[in-house]
Amino acid sequence: MTNKRKIEVFSAGCPTCRQAVEQVRNLACPSCDISVLDMNDPVTTARAQSLGVRSVPAVAIDGKLAGCCAGRGLDEQVLRAAGLGRPLS
Amino acid sequence: MTNKRKIEVFSAGCPTCRQAVEQVRNLACPSCDISVLDMNDPVTTARAQSLGVRSVPAVAIDGKLAGCCAGRGLDEQVLRAAGLGRPLS
Repeated sequence: MTNKRKIEVFSAGCPTCRQAVEQVRNLACPSCDISVLDMNDPVTTARAQSLGVRSVPAVAIDGKLAGCCAGRGLDEQVLRAAGLGRPLS
Repeated sequence: MTNKRKIEVFSAGCPTCRQAVEQVRNLACPSCDISVLDMNDPVTTARAQSLGVRSVPAVAIDGKLAGCCAGRGLDEQVLRAAGLGRPLS
């Protein structure tokens, strides 16, 4: 059985995500087994949530979310500090 | 002319993005003028690129990308360090 590294790319199919899929394909080597997973598929969404995906594109390598894709998504405090929800006089 | 704060929410329409749109709506107040922009629309993609959007969902407030959404997207060095592109023996 050939030894492969599992690369999961979580994509919503938008241009930003498609660009990331190309970036991953360009960086990959024959040992990289790439799956592009559609975030509009409930199975993928559940998988993404289990890995902590909160923004896309996101990449998991051998079942672990890559550092550049972890801990992302909207931050309520940051959004409030930038003015969201603060009435203007 | 009523004084409004411009809130742009960049969404690819996937569940993760839809959840973020709800989060922004829940945090907003009457001063917040929210536009949900579809990343599959070329005009939106160009706008997102001009603001530095590299992952979605993303929020810009009065034309400035919120701190929690800036500088995101895939990082080649981080992906390589995690094994992408490194042949297995």
